[in-house]
Amino acid sequence: MAQLIADRRDVDFVLHEQMEAGELSRYEKFAEFDKKTDDLIVSEARNLAIKEFLPTQKLGDEGCRFENGRVMVPDSFHRINKLYKDGEWLAMTDDPEWGGQGMPKLVSLAANEYFHGANASYMLYNSLSHGAARLVEEFGTEEQKKQCLRKMYSGEWSGTMLLTEPEAGSDLGALTTSAVKNDDGTYSITGSKIFISSGEQDMVENIIHPVLARIEGAPEGSKGISLFLVSKYRINDNGSLGEFNDAVCTGIEEKMGLHGNATCSLTLGGKGQCIGTLLGEENKGLFAMFQMMNEARQFVGLEGFAVSSAAYMYALNYARERIQSKNMMKPKDGSVPIIQHPDVRRTLITMKAYVEGMRSLIYYTGRCWDMAEVAANKEEKSRIMDVVEVLTPIVKGYISDKTLEVTSHAVQIYGGYGYIKEYPVEQLMRDCRIFMIYEGTNGIQAMDMLGRKLGMNNGKTFMDFLGEIRKSIDNAKKVSLISDLAGKVEELLNRVSEIALILGKAAMSDKVQNAYAFAQHFLEVMGDLSMAWMLLWRASVAAPKLEKLAGGSDPEKLRAKAEKNKDAAFYEGQLKTARFFIKTVVPVTMGKLDAIEGLDGAAVEMLESSFGSR
Amino acid sequence: MAQLIADRRDVDFVLHEQMEAGELSRYEKFAEFDKKTDDLIVSEARNLAIKEFLPTQKLGDEGCRFENGRVMVPDSFHRINKLYKDGEWLAMTDDPEWGGQGMPKLVSLAANEYFHGANASYMLYNSLSHGAARLVEEFGTEEQKKQCLRKMYSGEWSGTMLLTEPEAGSDLGALTTSAVKNDDGTYSITGSKIFISSGEQDMVENIIHPVLARIEGAPEGSKGISLFLVSKYRINDNGSLGEFNDAVCTGIEEKMGLHGNATCSLTLGGKGQCIGTLLGEENKGLFAMFQMMNEARQFVGLEGFAVSSAAYMYALNYARERIQSKNMMKPKDGSVPIIQHPDVRRTLITMKAYVEGMRSLIYYTGRCWDMAEVAANKEEKSRIMDVVEVLTPIVKGYISDKTLEVTSHAVQIYGGYGYIKEYPVEQLMRDCRIFMIYEGTNGIQAMDMLGRKLGMNNGKTFMDFLGEIRKSIDNAKKVSLISDLAGKVEELLNRVSEIALILGKAAMSDKVQNAYAFAQHFLEVMGDLSMAWMLLWRASVAAPKLEKLAGGSDPEKLRAKAEKNKDAAFYEGQLKTARFFIKTVVPVTMGKLDAIEGLDGAAVEMLESSFGSR
Repeated sequence: MAQLIADRRDVDFVLHEQMEAGELSRYEKFAEFDKKTDDLIVSEARNLAIKEFLPTQKLGDEGCRFENGRVMVPDSFHRINKLYKDGEWLAMTDDPEWGGQGMPKLVSLAANEYFHGANASYMLYNSLSHGAARLVEEFGTEEQKKQCLRKMYSGEWSGTMLLTEPEAGSDLGALTTSAVKNDDGTYSITGSKIFISSGEQDMVENIIHPVLARIEGAPEGSKGISLFLVSKYRINDNGSLGEFNDAVCTGIEEKMGLHGNATCSLTLGGKGQCIGTLLGEENKGLFAMFQMMNEARQFVGLEGFAVSSAAYMYALNYARERIQSKNMMKPKDGSVPIIQHPDVRRTLITMKAYVEGMRSLIYYTGRCWDMAEVAANKEEKSRIMDVVEVLTPIVKGYISDKTLEVTSHAVQIYGGYGYIKEYPVEQLMRDCRIFMIYEGTNGIQAMDMLGRKLGMNNGKTFMDFLGEIRKSIDNAKKVSLISDLAGKVEELLNRVSEIALILGKAAMSDKVQNAYAFAQHFLEVMGDLSMAWMLLWRASVAAPKLEKLAGGSDPEKLRAKAEKNKDAAFYEGQLKTARFFIKTVVPVTMGKLDAIEGLDGAAVEMLESSFGSR
Repeated sequence: MAQLIADRRDVDFVLHEQMEAGELSRYEKFAEFDKKTDDLIVSEARNLAIKEFLPTQKLGDEGCRFENGRVMVPDSFHRINKLYKDGEWLAMTDDPEWGGQGMPKLVSLAANEYFHGANASYMLYNSLSHGAARLVEEFGTEEQKKQCLRKMYSGEWSGTMLLTEPEAGSDLGALTTSAVKNDDGTYSITGSKIFISSGEQDMVENIIHPVLARIEGAPEGSKGISLFLVSKYRINDNGSLGEFNDAVCTGIEEKMGLHGNATCSLTLGGKGQCIGTLLGEENKGLFAMFQMMNEARQFVGLEGFAVSSAAYMYALNYARERIQSKNMMKPKDGSVPIIQHPDVRRTLITMKAYVEGMRSLIYYTGRCWDMAEVAANKEEKSRIMDVVEVLTPIVKGYISDKTLEVTSHAVQIYGGYGYIKEYPVEQLMRDCRIFMIYEGTNGIQAMDMLGRKLGMNNGKTFMDFLGEIRKSIDNAKKVSLISDLAGKVEELLNRVSEIALILGKAAMSDKVQNAYAFAQHFLEVMGDLSMAWMLLWRASVAAPKLEKLAGGSDPEKLRAKAEKNKDAAFYEGQLKTARFFIKTVVPVTMGKLDAIEGLDGAAVEMLESSFGSR
């Protein structure tokens, strides 16, 4: 049977052969999660995703319904929501004290990959719930935690995130929703919020909205923003639900895709009856929000990657089955599957390289979170989390950019069929386009990379990150089958170090605007480098195993073995994919670096009137 | 008032200052079309497009209806169709003998740019009609022409193109629709066709379907395909319409976009009653079809460009009005229009460079057609049309690739608003995705460039094409303000010549598959080169005019003038845009050339099993 959503062999490779998930069980915190348990978890998630979630993907494309303040999700979501809840999948990685499973993040990502790839619209309800619960766990009072956490982690209640207002999108400092303190210490909240994913729905009995708002008299701008918890229904002292809390859904957006997830507008306190409680400290709402933002951005990277993987599997299966045109080397054999045509192969290997590079990068990031959890001391922990800091804009921005490319390639492989709704790929392309926008547009990600991550700790964090890459290169150099590729990635790394210095200096000079006009280029370069790193690392794991299977390193021998043996074919695929990326994509990255070095100022110098007539 | 669809100043610049449209009136054929007349035509088209077409764009997104073999186009299309027909816009460039206007193609493109940008779904009905009419005019008998041509060019009847079958898409040689000769010389046609844009509709009284089919006993493959005309209703001897001709629409596709245009399935001769007449010679149907294909592909490039231009204008207007975040150089001034932010400027100038490069390239191609029409002799004509041959895959493939990028940039500029249907840009992005697929997928375009265009006339055609570019570079070198940019484009041109040779040789060696795995890269490089060419040419026209306005060439002086004077601002924009592209995009193109030079074979060597587990 054809593989769907994700290639299990590759999932297992990254989980065990590259990231050594089982090793985490040596730590007490993860003692229960040995390789066997990890595999069971992934298998169970995969079964649920393929058998139950996947059939609801297209149904979800028909969208949610809005009537008199109520939002009805697609009918088919109710069943999978029950299965997901019953399986206790929402809080895989969370504290058992609050009902979590305490699983390593690394393992949870493999499970989540299948879920998100099978139905991204539905999974967004859960991602938002999880993010909101994490906020409560991190910043909530004991009372807030007791009221909400178990309900949220179990999926009985959901959660959201109320940030955006019509005039406050990327610039949250401009928001105007207000909070007035009541005598009992609660706040009366008044304002209108838009673009709230999962903002209202009918799969849960209650919804917890973390809301950014200004307390009366707070400072202007981003320094006067506080965070509140607003429950859809008031929560009684005994934990039962009380009356409606005047948080009214006023509509849902019609969108390009991701129709199964309701994007809501909410009016809070239209009747003066919306009560919230402060979450964390006054005027430190943005700080709290951004603490959680890293996790939210990782989630966007994950869903982008999962959708990319699903698109690749569809395209690969289709290319193996669709018969069209002759093989150019054997025209007499008649028409053949299109996977035999060079241009189709070029497209497929491009998709494969990105998907596999993304998988390794995402799992690697997950492993960093896990290692931070079990770090011996604070220094060790912060060293690891610094790597995550640098990776976050790459995972969010670069991966979501590439997801659009990968899904578009899938449409192209299907030809005319790719454009019609009868086949699954056009939906994936529409669905994923929002990933480049929400949780901080990719322009914001690029600015984050240049403006914050490059200069963190006077550049030490960034250099440490490059140091991690250098370690992998040094390892790969020792593997004779790929030492030339390692050399190429080293050239890239050296050039990136050089350009990062130039760009960083420019960002602190009067050329600061020129530098920021190249922020997107720099993010792309960092992403390309990360892909090359991960693919090289994969190849350095695969090469010795392939040699062992083949009993030697002669190319003919390796190929002969790969033709007969599944594992050998897989490992050979790793070498070829790394070679493709490093020889075909990396030269283009070098060109981007040349462009950055030039730091040309045309974009910033151009008069506004020169952009076009009025 | 904000400009919509296209920047009229830029349209006029290309038409008159770069391509010198008025000069065409020196030829007898185009004597009526002096600058004044040209401008009137463009103004009229622009008015009609903005006032009447544009409001129907979003309405068209609601789609066509299909009931019992009938297709109802969006209601609003009937009115614009009447206006379009009354204005005699369909046959702008065609022979007055058949009701055409005999207009230069160059001028028609400026008009068409507005129409396609305002409603691409609707315009596709007209493009197909025009293409079918051109087939009849080129290959029809006198009788066929008399029966159809005036009706088609006037828009009373429409036309289509019946090529694709479920098992015959890119490989038309595999088609199975059959034709059996009747005693009266007509043919009985039997078969099923799919993916027929405009295949059935209710704006016209009759539809002429050119159909590819096999005559009983014809050779296998592409050598046994003939072309037939099948009229929806039989045509009586007196030209009136007779009974239904058994060409039954069996359904329309649900698609990602372009919903206003019906993509139909047709069954011909289901009751054995479908009669067609041979168009052109037996078994030479593909030849005839491909004669017309160049024109069809130019049309796809045009619609891609027009949609890109519309997307740019929307994004530019939005960026000028949307207030969000502070100017990084003047944080105390409060929030500003987002056009002041470097990353937004980088995005906008990227869009501008592509849109303007496309406009020049498309108009240039149109001018080539016109010059071929008035060529002094056959050699001159074929020299010009050879340039068009090389340009065709670039115009179709590269432009439609870039259209997806440009429309996606527009979505990004709008942020969250870009993803919702309330704003116009997400529709443009969905609509344009099919341009990369129909009329020969872009993979086919890339193969056409490498396999046919590079080697035409032993490479002479291609070298002549590069010679045209060199002429522009030589001109630009003499313009001191941009001589450095000219030098950079020359480096690119030289490198392209070198790599084209390497790639061409590889395509004729045992590395042929490696070469074809880089066909897409090569097409991209040719497209980038064409953009650089056109933008440099624009700058070389603009520079002396700017200097004249400013009374000198001192940069401060030029800028001061541009700040005050609209024309100077426009010309300065031309210099900046060229500089941006040549300094920021061309280095990346150089990287692509390095990748091609490597000709790495990973994509073609990879075992099919290595692409992923089954």
